[in-house]
Amino acid sequence: MEEMVDTTLQQRLQSLAEKMEKASEAIYERAYFSVFEENPSPKFYGETADADGKAEFEAMLGKPFEGLLQDTEGASYKGVEVSPYTGKALGITYPALDPNALVAKAIEAQLEWEIVAPDDRIGLLMMALLEFEKSFFTIAHATMHVTGQGFMMAFQAGAPHAADRAAEAVTLAGQQLGNWEVVSEWRKPMGKTEIALHKEYIVIPHGISLALGCSTFPTWNSLPGIFASLAVGSPVIVKPHPLAILPLAIAVRCIQRALVEAGLSPEICQLAVDTVEEPIAKHLAEQPKVKIIDYTGGSSFGNYLETLPGKVLFTEKAGINVAIVAQADDLNAVVQNLAFSVCLYSGQMCTAPHHIMVPAEGVTTPAGKIAPADFAKALAEAINALSTNPKAGPFVLGAIQNPATLERLKTTGQAGEEILAGAAIAHPMFEGARMLSPSVRLVTQNPEAAITEELFGPTVLVLVLPTIEAAIHLTASVAEEKGAISGAIYMDEADDRFVDYVHSLNRVGIPVSVNLTGPIYMNQNAAFSDMHVTGGNPAGNGSIGSPDFISRRFFVVGNKYVIKGE
Amino acid sequence: MEEMVDTTLQQRLQSLAEKMEKASEAIYERAYFSVFEENPSPKFYGETADADGKAEFEAMLGKPFEGLLQDTEGASYKGVEVSPYTGKALGITYPALDPNALVAKAIEAQLEWEIVAPDDRIGLLMMALLEFEKSFFTIAHATMHVTGQGFMMAFQAGAPHAADRAAEAVTLAGQQLGNWEVVSEWRKPMGKTEIALHKEYIVIPHGISLALGCSTFPTWNSLPGIFASLAVGSPVIVKPHPLAILPLAIAVRCIQRALVEAGLSPEICQLAVDTVEEPIAKHLAEQPKVKIIDYTGGSSFGNYLETLPGKVLFTEKAGINVAIVAQADDLNAVVQNLAFSVCLYSGQMCTAPHHIMVPAEGVTTPAGKIAPADFAKALAEAINALSTNPKAGPFVLGAIQNPATLERLKTTGQAGEEILAGAAIAHPMFEGARMLSPSVRLVTQNPEAAITEELFGPTVLVLVLPTIEAAIHLTASVAEEKGAISGAIYMDEADDRFVDYVHSLNRVGIPVSVNLTGPIYMNQNAAFSDMHVTGGNPAGNGSIGSPDFISRRFFVVGNKYVIKGE
Repeated sequence: MEEMVDTTLQQRLQSLAEKMEKASEAIYERAYFSVFEENPSPKFYGETADADGKAEFEAMLGKPFEGLLQDTEGASYKGVEVSPYTGKALGITYPALDPNALVAKAIEAQLEWEIVAPDDRIGLLMMALLEFEKSFFTIAHATMHVTGQGFMMAFQAGAPHAADRAAEAVTLAGQQLGNWEVVSEWRKPMGKTEIALHKEYIVIPHGISLALGCSTFPTWNSLPGIFASLAVGSPVIVKPHPLAILPLAIAVRCIQRALVEAGLSPEICQLAVDTVEEPIAKHLAEQPKVKIIDYTGGSSFGNYLETLPGKVLFTEKAGINVAIVAQADDLNAVVQNLAFSVCLYSGQMCTAPHHIMVPAEGVTTPAGKIAPADFAKALAEAINALSTNPKAGPFVLGAIQNPATLERLKTTGQAGEEILAGAAIAHPMFEGARMLSPSVRLVTQNPEAAITEELFGPTVLVLVLPTIEAAIHLTASVAEEKGAISGAIYMDEADDRFVDYVHSLNRVGIPVSVNLTGPIYMNQNAAFSDMHVTGGNPAGNGSIGSPDFISRRFFVVGNKYVIKGE
Repeated sequence: MEEMVDTTLQQRLQSLAEKMEKASEAIYERAYFSVFEENPSPKFYGETADADGKAEFEAMLGKPFEGLLQDTEGASYKGVEVSPYTGKALGITYPALDPNALVAKAIEAQLEWEIVAPDDRIGLLMMALLEFEKSFFTIAHATMHVTGQGFMMAFQAGAPHAADRAAEAVTLAGQQLGNWEVVSEWRKPMGKTEIALHKEYIVIPHGISLALGCSTFPTWNSLPGIFASLAVGSPVIVKPHPLAILPLAIAVRCIQRALVEAGLSPEICQLAVDTVEEPIAKHLAEQPKVKIIDYTGGSSFGNYLETLPGKVLFTEKAGINVAIVAQADDLNAVVQNLAFSVCLYSGQMCTAPHHIMVPAEGVTTPAGKIAPADFAKALAEAINALSTNPKAGPFVLGAIQNPATLERLKTTGQAGEEILAGAAIAHPMFEGARMLSPSVRLVTQNPEAAITEELFGPTVLVLVLPTIEAAIHLTASVAEEKGAISGAIYMDEADDRFVDYVHSLNRVGIPVSVNLTGPIYMNQNAAFSDMHVTGGNPAGNGSIGSPDFISRRFFVVGNKYVIKGE
């Protein structure tokens, strides 16, 4: 992608179009593929990209957000974001508009947007992704300072990976819309005569879309739904979490630029802003013309959304993610891998494991059985070593997005015995950053009673189960009742029971990572390949890789015309 | 298909497999295609097929239904079907089982069925369709005597067309399941090293399926959902309407034969039976493990089903279907076409037009404007001529399925002025058949107040609207609020407003038949081609042609394995 830095927009668009064509094949193969470069190196993005992005971010602080093209008449300006690294308010304000006015504008915009030819919509969305790519480093710094993510994650997940997921959604939409571009000559023999009809198929979005963002991965989680809805002709109102507006505001700005460039209304994709005290999400969601909702966030609001009649709803809520460790060829490699999974962004990923189960007889290793307590100690040591390594710890852990997370951990997940206490971690660049290393507790009694909620944040419970079967059974029943987004198992793949165990987890919607060691983790979900959030349990149904992620947003209606002169 | 009569099962299966491969292409082209022969001629089905089917049907009367292979221990035998042609009870009883027991058996069966390889499931369902084909004439007589349809419709819609729709669902399922049969080698470069994973994708049905049948088109409406669910690995409980059990009982028997032939549990597809007085549909639908529901029937029960949380629901409820007549090159051809649409099965099709709108200025014809009253008279004459033609009328009209339909028409649809009264029609073969020719009324004032419900049964209102625009607007707003399944427009396609008008109807989910004359009608929806029930309005969302019709029944979960030796 080196050449992309200096080429013209036309060439870049051409290059993107070719990549998205390849993406289409990659989706069928589900092999590794990326449209955007994940390495934030000058080699790919130019010598000054990082400094420019940082400078652009810093220039935004303390001012009204600029560059939105939507009608902001009558807006009050609001913004309450605080950096978990500096503890200071960003001071950026955004135009907060009356929700009814936003919906009215979106309804008007739908008439304009739904009749744009599908290929033109796809092309325009590709332009928007190129706009977004120009802001990758700005997005990275913005994401870092609203979510608390370390820079590398903020860049990768917030920018290229989010853009890849958007490209995946656009590619899937292109495939599906293409299936309906049929000019059918329907000729039915009727004895000596025939009926000749021309049939056409019209794709119509179900209505206005609403994207409700989250505070931890604002672009990674929301861009796919936003781009999927736009691709099928539905205007989108983007309502970020009030504590993580900036990354999505930049994304909306990029989309609006592409819309206006094409002579279309910027209200096809509008930013909606609220505050923690005066939320507008319910008001927007309950509007009758808002038919499509993409939501990422806590389960209780997600469960409320599920009660709204007549909505096409895609959710990513909370899950209880379990790693089951029965066997380890290399115990050190296994605990290192799990320690990284636990530490990464301080357990604030929806895919992070907060519960690790081991059988009472211990973990089978070449050196014999490792007792649960010894396993827990080994894990704690690995977590402690990573957390307190000044060259890695602070950057892997990042900061705690919301002070409420730390408050909650004081009273939840307190079962069993403490093996490792969470400790304050200093960040070399941000004095007073809100940081805490993960705690580890060992639960030898009543694991069923200890596994009750997600335990979002830097903490992990090691639960001792009588047998592997019991661990599988408990993991599955918890997932069925409360949801799960990721899962891992460490055991002998040649064991007779292995296939059944994996199937038992799969059938409650848990994707299983088997015996992962090295630099690949159960928390990770790659675009064009992984089924992130399966729909098989209450954790959510917004599975981008699934054809439903596109097709549920629209309906198809067929018209019949008599073929003339027959 | 002549050769199919005498060939062996193996050859017939081969022939069916080839047809279903062609069906897969036909779905992309949406050109005319059929797997099963719709002409009930001896040429295709053999000299004795009709007589044999009739004899088999008659031999069933007055006895417990035989041949189901499911566990019927503890069943009480119930059956209250009455022929609208003879007025007599069929006297066939069916095993009525405890709904909880049915669900428990289905849960058990899912463990067996979901692990059958997708290709084997598809193959087995093809076998079931061949079993079903053997019973086409029995199905035809059964359908005739529970629904009141004329023989030709009972044969075509009940047997080959229903089987075609099942084949369409199976074909779509085969395509989709095939997309997940990926053996992905996911290799991600990481600087000097790479991560190598094997990723697999597992398709899991959401749970048990429930198919709730209707009393007018039991097989045509229910087979697609039954076969779609079975194809994705979900066991199905088939609960026919208590007044139209026999056709679905025969279908379930065919499926059970194919299951048992393959050494599988017949409980993968069970028949559930109830009576009008003691319905069990709610009890079944509310079972937590019943996750997928296909429903055809009245809107009020459908609306109740929509309130159940956590279900994947496919509905076909009622709609208000409108034909708008602004222009006719050949007025006679237009009223003939509409008269047939109104008469066909006495307006008991969910796609029948019960409301025809004309502009106040009249219908434009080469002979000048035809005033609304004159148009209504011409339509009434055509309906009367068809209804009272002893060689055509009784066979096109069929009988009235439910006496409640006639009762309801005494008090509803009474706006305006009567142009044609419904009249008793004699059937040449069935004395005392429950028959009534369609009535026609002309509504010149307050059309908005007159168009309030479906008017299911033999009646049609001609509504006078100030302009075509007003007709389009009223049709669209009624569809948006109450649903619509079909629509027709007669106007000059070169008129500047034509495209907008069609789009205005399309965007509320109305498929538009344009200027149909001759032997093709707005009521008809062909397999492999038409989008019957679009999901764009409250009439329902069970649109077989849509990929959702399959994909919403399952979720996909991905597993990751480290590629060994790397």
